[in-house]
Amino acid sequence: MSDPGPIRVGMLGLGNVGAGVAAVLFNKSEQLADSVGRGIQLRRALVRDPARSRPIAPPPGVLTTDPQQIVAADDIDVVIELLGGLSPARELIEASIANGKHVVTANKEVMAHHGAELLAQAAERGVDLYFEASVGAGIPLIGPFRQNLTANQFSAVEAIINGTTNYILTRMAAEGSDYGAVLSDAQRLGYAEPDPANDIEGHDAAYKLAVLATLAFGVEVRPESIYREGIAGLAAADFKAAADLGYGIKLLAIARLRDGAVEARVHPTMIPRGCLLCQVGGVENAVRIQGDLIGNATFVGRGAGPEPTASVADLIDLSHNLALGAHARVPLRVGASCSFRPIEQVRSRYYLRLWVKDQPGVLARIGSVFGAHQVSIAAVTQKETDDDASLAELVIVTHQAVERDMQAAVNEAGALDITDRVANLIRIEDIP
Amino acid sequence: MSDPGPIRVGMLGLGNVGAGVAAVLFNKSEQLADSVGRGIQLRRALVRDPARSRPIAPPPGVLTTDPQQIVAADDIDVVIELLGGLSPARELIEASIANGKHVVTANKEVMAHHGAELLAQAAERGVDLYFEASVGAGIPLIGPFRQNLTANQFSAVEAIINGTTNYILTRMAAEGSDYGAVLSDAQRLGYAEPDPANDIEGHDAAYKLAVLATLAFGVEVRPESIYREGIAGLAAADFKAAADLGYGIKLLAIARLRDGAVEARVHPTMIPRGCLLCQVGGVENAVRIQGDLIGNATFVGRGAGPEPTASVADLIDLSHNLALGAHARVPLRVGASCSFRPIEQVRSRYYLRLWVKDQPGVLARIGSVFGAHQVSIAAVTQKETDDDASLAELVIVTHQAVERDMQAAVNEAGALDITDRVANLIRIEDIP
Repeated sequence: MSDPGPIRVGMLGLGNVGAGVAAVLFNKSEQLADSVGRGIQLRRALVRDPARSRPIAPPPGVLTTDPQQIVAADDIDVVIELLGGLSPARELIEASIANGKHVVTANKEVMAHHGAELLAQAAERGVDLYFEASVGAGIPLIGPFRQNLTANQFSAVEAIINGTTNYILTRMAAEGSDYGAVLSDAQRLGYAEPDPANDIEGHDAAYKLAVLATLAFGVEVRPESIYREGIAGLAAADFKAAADLGYGIKLLAIARLRDGAVEARVHPTMIPRGCLLCQVGGVENAVRIQGDLIGNATFVGRGAGPEPTASVADLIDLSHNLALGAHARVPLRVGASCSFRPIEQVRSRYYLRLWVKDQPGVLARIGSVFGAHQVSIAAVTQKETDDDASLAELVIVTHQAVERDMQAAVNEAGALDITDRVANLIRIEDIP
Repeated sequence: MSDPGPIRVGMLGLGNVGAGVAAVLFNKSEQLADSVGRGIQLRRALVRDPARSRPIAPPPGVLTTDPQQIVAADDIDVVIELLGGLSPARELIEASIANGKHVVTANKEVMAHHGAELLAQAAERGVDLYFEASVGAGIPLIGPFRQNLTANQFSAVEAIINGTTNYILTRMAAEGSDYGAVLSDAQRLGYAEPDPANDIEGHDAAYKLAVLATLAFGVEVRPESIYREGIAGLAAADFKAAADLGYGIKLLAIARLRDGAVEARVHPTMIPRGCLLCQVGGVENAVRIQGDLIGNATFVGRGAGPEPTASVADLIDLSHNLALGAHARVPLRVGASCSFRPIEQVRSRYYLRLWVKDQPGVLARIGSVFGAHQVSIAAVTQKETDDDASLAELVIVTHQAVERDMQAAVNEAGALDITDRVANLIRIEDIP
């Protein structure tokens, strides 16, 4: 049998993650060739400035500033896209696919917005599109979804998939600090970006949830369909009240398939302190899935740092296929459409913290507002009092209610003359 | 292209797990055919008594009492072995491989004792041997090990992989009950076998650890190389003392590769109450792995119940290969030999509970025994006293020490005239 030669890789981007991937390809080349049965060779890498000094020094001729040298080159088998952002990453992935190249991407934004169409293009062209690194960097998730769990009908994904926000919330819970102080510190330490909006407003988590839910339910779930609320409104008082109630607060990404409709949302969520997800601290990520056969399974691992690992794992899995001439081994099929349940129709339990006048009859009036909107109150606790202003802080916990009703009740209660201000509303999920 | 026809399956055993697998093949046949691209047909199933009434009723001609009708039949592509036990399961797997059939097995005992040789036979014959169901039934583990994590060098596996013992220990911790009472109750409820030795003595966990460690380190780790201690010696007093120290007690299966040598052991272990593994309660299983690229990742899921899922998942993965003509896609290579570190040379921290005479000078004498054996004491606490017998209960926690030294110190301390009895010795692992 003639030697088919190495699998020839072109990389789009050679920043932190790219350098990590290249380092693995260089440092573990023998181990990889041994496992795959063919060598894996980094043939070309797209960079902005070839002259810049780098932690890894590729051989001469590898660096290029022209993406066509990769996406349209005859001597490239696999393109690894690590540029991030929508454009030109999406166009370059499409060009690679159109030119018959297999693609590995770590781009959650592209996969969240265009995953279904890119997968269709790849299937059409008979090439593979791998994207493990786009979700929960250190945790092998998409592999199990694609392969081992094919037999399952999935009904829920509940996940902590943004390391920055989990780091901030973990510290707020531990230190009793307020949001602003912890964010500044996280920025100083490099755990949060100078412009943290993408993380703290839940965009990043929504992208990842879109990818996970699309895989889990086999229907296209786009980021626009995902209700999103960030963590900036959380206060130390919420964490204290949550702890008193036996809960912790996490930025949870939730997707459920119920009665034929998909609901998908990212928002601060109170979950029982004893549950596994609540124990996942710092920058760690966790994904809990529910399937008809498997029951519940939870995957926990580092959310950031080992992105190169996931891309390398994809490359290796793909290389196994190439070494055997068996590409597109487990094609992903995404159904055309499905019914979505808007947030207004979602059912949940709620925690509400509000400041009211410290006087008799207040509870009765607020209770009657909630009752009129079919929201049943499970418990009311008076927390702090502000004697100068004659105000008292109330924490109300409800039974299951429909979001629309709850929002209406909160609006009406907030407008009462006895109400000073509504401080926060947080959904409660009793995840075991 | 001519229709290659369905993938033809023969099952060895049609008990609880087998009936579950058959039910999935019947109930989800369209979904499976759709995913795989070829139908999967249950052609034949080995049973003891074809006349027995069963929850599923296979078509006529499927049931047989002759294993040769499966392992040597021309019209069988894949053999699913669900007999359990070493013999005749091992011989039938070998015969299937020799006859060119792919094999899916749920048999942890066979895989633990003969996994390496069976994998070598399969590689030699060019067929696939899948065994996901042999470890941590509901958690996809072997898939990730085989594929996504190929690039990693693994250094540790720490796992709760026996549901029966975890159920018993969870209840002992929650209720403050003693071992015997909880075991009886677990037997009554069906969580423990009438003869529970296989679970409570750690055999089952050692089999699974042998399979996991073999995969993780790429060297043959046989059950005989695994140090094993069961849970029968644990008392309510140990759980109470552990809680006071901030620990819980789990039957942990630990395999580590350190300084070129493998250590592997299954024993009751104190782990910090806040760590993820300690939160895994009841019959749930959890596996924590450590790799050079991935860092730490933990997989949590049901340990029992969904065994059919894992075998079906294996069958589907295998069927994807068959549909593409790409068998033996990711061959497992197990190295010939490695160096093992016997338990005597393992380093650990220790918890020791013992009853001593309630009199002055006792602590000094015990302390000097430990010092003489290079075991440094971190803390001593006096727990209970038995005034009638003038005895006091001490709990000693040590710093890191070598097992041989610790055992010598405990033996010598136990033989002192001031010592009434050594109640328990438990290893401490500070897993984060």
